[in-house]
Amino acid sequence: MSDRYRRGIDIAQQLSFGSLEQFLTSQVAEVAPDFARMAIEFPFGDLYSRDGLDLQKREIVAIAALASLGHANQLRLHVAAALQLGATRSEIVEILMQTAVYGGFPAALNALAECHDLLTDDDCVGSSCR
Amino acid sequence: MSDRYRRGIDIAQQLSFGSLEQFLTSQVAEVAPDFARMAIEFPFGDLYSRDGLDLQKREIVAIAALASLGHANQLRLHVAAALQLGATRSEIVEILMQTAVYGGFPAALNALAECHDLLTDDDCVGSSCR
Amino acid sequence: MSDRYRRGIDIAQQLSFGSLEQFLTSQVAEVAPDFARMAIEFPFGDLYSRDGLDLQKREIVAIAALASLGHANQLRLHVAAALQLGATRSEIVEILMQTAVYGGFPAALNALAECHDLLTDDDCVGSSCR
Amino acid sequence: MSDRYRRGIDIAQQLSFGSLEQFLTSQVAEVAPDFARMAIEFPFGDLYSRDGLDLQKREIVAIAALASLGHANQLRLHVAAALQLGATRSEIVEILMQTAVYGGFPAALNALAECHDLLTDDDCVGSSCR
Amino acid sequence: MSDRYRRGIDIAQQLSFGSLEQFLTSQVAEVAPDFARMAIEFPFGDLYSRDGLDLQKREIVAIAALASLGHANQLRLHVAAALQLGATRSEIVEILMQTAVYGGFPAALNALAECHDLLTDDDCVGSSCR
Amino acid sequence: MSDRYRRGIDIAQQLSFGSLEQFLTSQVAEVAPDFARMAIEFPFGDLYSRDGLDLQKREIVAIAALASLGHANQLRLHVAAALQLGATRSEIVEILMQTAVYGGFPAALNALAECHDLLTDDDCVGSSCR
Repeated sequence: MSDRYRRGIDIAQQLSFGSLEQFLTSQVAEVAPDFARMAIEFPFGDLYSRDGLDLQKREIVAIAALASLGHANQLRLHVAAALQLGATRSEIVEILMQTAVYGGFPAALNALAECHDLLTDDDCVGSSCR
Repeated sequence: MSDRYRRGIDIAQQLSFGSLEQFLTSQVAEVAPDFARMAIEFPFGDLYSRDGLDLQKREIVAIAALASLGHANQLRLHVAAALQLGATRSEIVEILMQTAVYGGFPAALNALAECHDLLTDDDCVGSSCR
Repeated sequence: MSDRYRRGIDIAQQLSFGSLEQFLTSQVAEVAPDFARMAIEFPFGDLYSRDGLDLQKREIVAIAALASLGHANQLRLHVAAALQLGATRSEIVEILMQTAVYGGFPAALNALAECHDLLTDDDCVGSSCR
Repeated sequence: MSDRYRRGIDIAQQLSFGSLEQFLTSQVAEVAPDFARMAIEFPFGDLYSRDGLDLQKREIVAIAALASLGHANQLRLHVAAALQLGATRSEIVEILMQTAVYGGFPAALNALAECHDLLTDDDCVGSSCR
Repeated sequence: MSDRYRRGIDIAQQLSFGSLEQFLTSQVAEVAPDFARMAIEFPFGDLYSRDGLDLQKREIVAIAALASLGHANQLRLHVAAALQLGATRSEIVEILMQTAVYGGFPAALNALAECHDLLTDDDCVGSSCR
Repeated sequence: MSDRYRRGIDIAQQLSFGSLEQFLTSQVAEVAPDFARMAIEFPFGDLYSRDGLDLQKREIVAIAALASLGHANQLRLHVAAALQLGATRSEIVEILMQTAVYGGFPAALNALAECHDLLTDDDCVGSSCR
């Protein structure tokens, strides 16, 4: 196990990326185990572990990029991670709304709908709650 | 309620955008009520309401852009709106076919498949009917 | 010379696509003469020549798709063609503005800037003139 | 039936594109029969049939482009065709992994997950088998 | 002048968006003065002015989205704005590097090259300064 | 210097990627030296160096993906590398033509025009020469 992988797994755990590990041990890991490893090593081991940008800001980067590009699966993982790191729901809603400016309304509408369950629960609705 | 919103809702009703309102009062509206409002105000209240391009031509713009970019949900809403405004099925099929030139065959094939039910019914099949 | 090519060239001439022919006889035609021919045959010979959507509406499709996808060279050719067919400048400005909804503000801002010279001249400025 | 169509169908059969024909005789063919024909004529009849690039290399082009652009349906058809032509699973996995460089990790992860069943079976797992 | 516009201009000034105003009073404003106004009103007047995400985080969203989507002109404006708001060069370099994960290496390499002059000067080089 | 970097540089030299090194020692390397290193390590050191797909096929993947996505700078580097590895001009022209199917005609036309000088010289023109 490389240092890069170990560092990556460590970051993924700080992000409570249980779901990523789950994803990476299933379909992708079955067909391309080396790529599942690289998908930990490069993003998390090489980049997220660097000084110069804290994890919360890195999750803003991930969410803004993934919503703009329309990658729903990965967007959900990073929205969950951002909430885990302490971001509020309304911050995430603001990020997703703002992507309408750069990637268009459909991308932003899709992103908000795809993360609906992560951004609501029984006790609070919409942007009025944390 | 802003003038822009009122104007936007008025346009949406001319487009028989029942389904949009439905969409906007459910998932997106729950997580981001202000964005649901903006998604009426800016596209419909600010742009569609302007002179200089009639609603039928605006729906051609919407369908061509959404098919090229691969946004299925919004494409369906605008195909339904265009039919409501009097566009024929074969006109819409021609628009979707032409997007193959600019965005590639997969985008056009997906768009045609995604709108299959809107573009066929029991009494007529394919481009041979209105 | 195939019927499809002849039909395509005929359409291109109706669109006053002098600039396309120029383009197609230079760089692309030098490296890929067969592709230059196909780029007339398929879009113009096969699609534009079909009944069911008139040339003016086909140019709206082209402009909306190309602006959304960010293809500046081809956008300029089709804006010139649309003007030739009788579209007004303000119609074209409205089309380009509307693409901001689907593809984002940067795509629309770029499209408007790239077509600046085609959409202005000495005697009139902006959307206040034909 | 045009020579181009006949040539295209012949290529499609060499690719064992049963699934394409199936696709083309269903949804798309119902709403746009002429486009279903064009989707055989241009890609297969005009391009694949040309000398200068063999079918196996053409399938690499298709798979790399479709994975990068995120077109899942068409990607699956071409992965199946490449396997039929004699490509090994591990070659296809390598192609899909490499697209991460150009189109990002999410595109490559999605492509690998979407082709999971085509790239695994009971007797072998992952890149360890043909 | 609408409240939204006034609010937008006020934000733009906080971002020291002199270059945006310059841009908006030239090419785009000449062909589409109303769109130049809307490009202040919606992004800055409606979104940036909202509580829930501070201006520095909004600039991270803008930079991540624009780099991923490949919009060079607007990227440069927002990198300049982020520096003005107090972001360090190395933070911006980290953001641009991270977009390689989501949008691919070419998008990130282009973004870094396009902002080269904004991210270097005589007294310091690369990520070793400020 | 990591093994991954050494392996990557070795591959880059086999591809005669002089121009890449040049690129990587200039703008990008100045603002983000670590990223210039990663852009050797991951694509070339981790992926290109793997068994399972030879360098010539890897260059087909790169060219097809980059042409479809519209990344001109990187496309040119890989077209030059493919020629160096022994690909013929007409093979590369066929690859670029075929991307019209997946990414649309404008992407393919742009790719062919952008590589015009690499695909022609004094002694031979177009696809009639090696």
